[in-house]
Amino acid sequence: MLNELERLMAERNLDAILVAGSTHANPPMFYVMKGAHVGKATLYLHKRGAAPVVIANPMEREEAAQAGYAVLLTSDFDYAGLLRDAEGDALKAEVAYYRRIFERFGVRGRVGFYGLMDQGAAYCRLQALAAALVDVEIVGELEDSVIMAARATKSAEEIARIREVGRRTQAVVQDTIDFLSGHTATAEGFLRRSDGDALRVGDVHAFIRARIAAHGLQDPEGFIFATGRDAGIPHSKGTLEAPLRLGESIVFDIFPQESGGGYFFDFTRTFALGYAPEALEKLYADVLGCLNHVKAAFRVGEFTRIYQQMTCEYFAQRGHVTLREDSRALSGYIHSVGHGLGLDVHEVPFFRDLPTATQRLEPGHVFTVEPGLYYPEQGMGVRLEDVMAIDEAGTVTCLTEFPYELVVPVKGTR
Amino acid sequence: MLNELERLMAERNLDAILVAGSTHANPPMFYVMKGAHVGKATLYLHKRGAAPVVIANPMEREEAAQAGYAVLLTSDFDYAGLLRDAEGDALKAEVAYYRRIFERFGVRGRVGFYGLMDQGAAYCRLQALAAALVDVEIVGELEDSVIMAARATKSAEEIARIREVGRRTQAVVQDTIDFLSGHTATAEGFLRRSDGDALRVGDVHAFIRARIAAHGLQDPEGFIFATGRDAGIPHSKGTLEAPLRLGESIVFDIFPQESGGGYFFDFTRTFALGYAPEALEKLYADVLGCLNHVKAAFRVGEFTRIYQQMTCEYFAQRGHVTLREDSRALSGYIHSVGHGLGLDVHEVPFFRDLPTATQRLEPGHVFTVEPGLYYPEQGMGVRLEDVMAIDEAGTVTCLTEFPYELVVPVKGTR
Repeated sequence: MLNELERLMAERNLDAILVAGSTHANPPMFYVMKGAHVGKATLYLHKRGAAPVVIANPMEREEAAQAGYAVLLTSDFDYAGLLRDAEGDALKAEVAYYRRIFERFGVRGRVGFYGLMDQGAAYCRLQALAAALVDVEIVGELEDSVIMAARATKSAEEIARIREVGRRTQAVVQDTIDFLSGHTATAEGFLRRSDGDALRVGDVHAFIRARIAAHGLQDPEGFIFATGRDAGIPHSKGTLEAPLRLGESIVFDIFPQESGGGYFFDFTRTFALGYAPEALEKLYADVLGCLNHVKAAFRVGEFTRIYQQMTCEYFAQRGHVTLREDSRALSGYIHSVGHGLGLDVHEVPFFRDLPTATQRLEPGHVFTVEPGLYYPEQGMGVRLEDVMAIDEAGTVTCLTEFPYELVVPVKGTR
Repeated sequence: MLNELERLMAERNLDAILVAGSTHANPPMFYVMKGAHVGKATLYLHKRGAAPVVIANPMEREEAAQAGYAVLLTSDFDYAGLLRDAEGDALKAEVAYYRRIFERFGVRGRVGFYGLMDQGAAYCRLQALAAALVDVEIVGELEDSVIMAARATKSAEEIARIREVGRRTQAVVQDTIDFLSGHTATAEGFLRRSDGDALRVGDVHAFIRARIAAHGLQDPEGFIFATGRDAGIPHSKGTLEAPLRLGESIVFDIFPQESGGGYFFDFTRTFALGYAPEALEKLYADVLGCLNHVKAAFRVGEFTRIYQQMTCEYFAQRGHVTLREDSRALSGYIHSVGHGLGLDVHEVPFFRDLPTATQRLEPGHVFTVEPGLYYPEQGMGVRLEDVMAIDEAGTVTCLTEFPYELVVPVKGTR
């Protein structure tokens, strides 16, 4: 949680942190700015033990103020003048700009830098800063940064927001099922559109996109509605030209976000239109059995890696190859059982199957559980995905409330 | 253009470039991958003089192949095994992983790194690589990287895509005007909703969002529909609770993107409902005069800075303060006259008013022209924004075809 930043900074011996950039598509900045909409020039500076300050583009002074911090303006530090003095040398001007800001606030010691930007530009700028600011040690953190560690434990309000995105997401999926089952099957085993043509994956994609918007969500990362062989390749989004065929597996994985940026949900069901062949029913039963098995085992304090191991064992016992037996496998169980969910679709906690992994489940964690089995050569795949949340008391609840029904009835079948 | 990468690499003495990360919200990667949808683990490696290769998550092998390059898999370089060998030390494992890839393809010399990621993580990773790979020099480029330089000059196909986003964007604005003028004014000077309540900025935002989706666009960065005093603050998005009032200035700045990620458009008009007070009409005339003045002057080979100077002079002559007179001004003309437009809303070319700026207009440039005047204390602001494109022959055309009409007629007025 955001109020843990001070403690996390102390634990990691950071004297200050600096988060930079727009709040658009930049979760660290969105997080510390509490969703206020500000652009690329923004800096959030937080000295340990002091109130954070924001330096904002003058045009965005009122938007920036919405985060509740003191706001200073980029023009207070006269970047334009520094750029002129540096004869247009942006690197030189930026170093002088940071120097001016750090002097103004007495920033020295270990300073952590965060926020998404071009990796080469970041390297170039931070190297120059490290060379120029002798009393500052530039600190970069890989995956589990202080910001990510704070984000990983959600407040009750954050969990409520994710639950609401989930409610809307599940409404989109129900709308899509109703749309599909409103069609009539042809004798050849396809669905017929009102204009007589076959219903294609692209038609369903367009329907889904419209429903996402209608439910007040956005889908910056798209979604997966993939049929047959595509359903057997976990991240295939689907082939737009493919007609929908009765009895084929359909993997529908949808991960929309609050409109205007914010929290994501992540939800997967697998369907078959009209009927399901026996092999697909068997696969579905294995995945659903695994889902229930793993969901029943989540508890605070447990290493996350054991859930990946548990999933592999469950599937291996039923004759499926997993990454444990073959780390290069392309069929069977070939991904992770889950991941944290929040301002990113994939964030801490992760569920890596590494003997040395130290990640444990904690109060505030929100994460997916998504076992799946993939057989592209047999033209099928199954994945089921729910979202779990652990509240402050340590109680594990499932935020997804959607039935597990493989077959979607279609007129003209059975 | 993408086919200029080889030439640009040679000019900058780069032996190879490496672009990393998802194609989502990561324009450098979206660009080199030609829009194929791939996730965070992806690497695009381009040795000068050789065909580019892509290293992709096995689950995304078919999506990655759509870019037309040879595709290898992350599992071919066994990152999972390296992470195990490194006992979970991600930095150590990543260095070993890059070493393995660079050895496989004989990458050495000056290697440029690109792609959006956390700045601290990038610094940490590239520092470690620089220390470990003795025959590689890690190169980071600020703003005008080889990728950005290639992106700055659009092909005819790219210009056609931007024009199409523009056509849809303008349709959204026309829909919004029709929506507004479909309302009836009250005697007190507000618009009445069908339920009798006053029409508020938030109602219009919801309408605009729905129309953006209906026209097959997305708005990851939002839009501006700001009234009265908010219109006088360039980046204010508008106050949702504010009722729309006759005669107030409304700045409507909309910058949507192709659905699923891709090219943006950027378009601004200023409106007043029912009538416009004389002071607003005067401001509008100054801005429109300036727009036409600057648009007539665009030509290939000219320094971009002269257009910012020209805009300042035009406004100063009409009694407005500009950034030339006061770099900290909060009213008058207080921003740049334009910016490049493409996979980012703001990209090269920029129009900075620096005597040392060397940027010139070139064939393939697509950019906005957007003079504006802001008087928050008088409760008004005006901005007009069109998009210009320069084709390969050097001909400058305007991609925006929308009238300049300040007053939107409303029933019950005049």
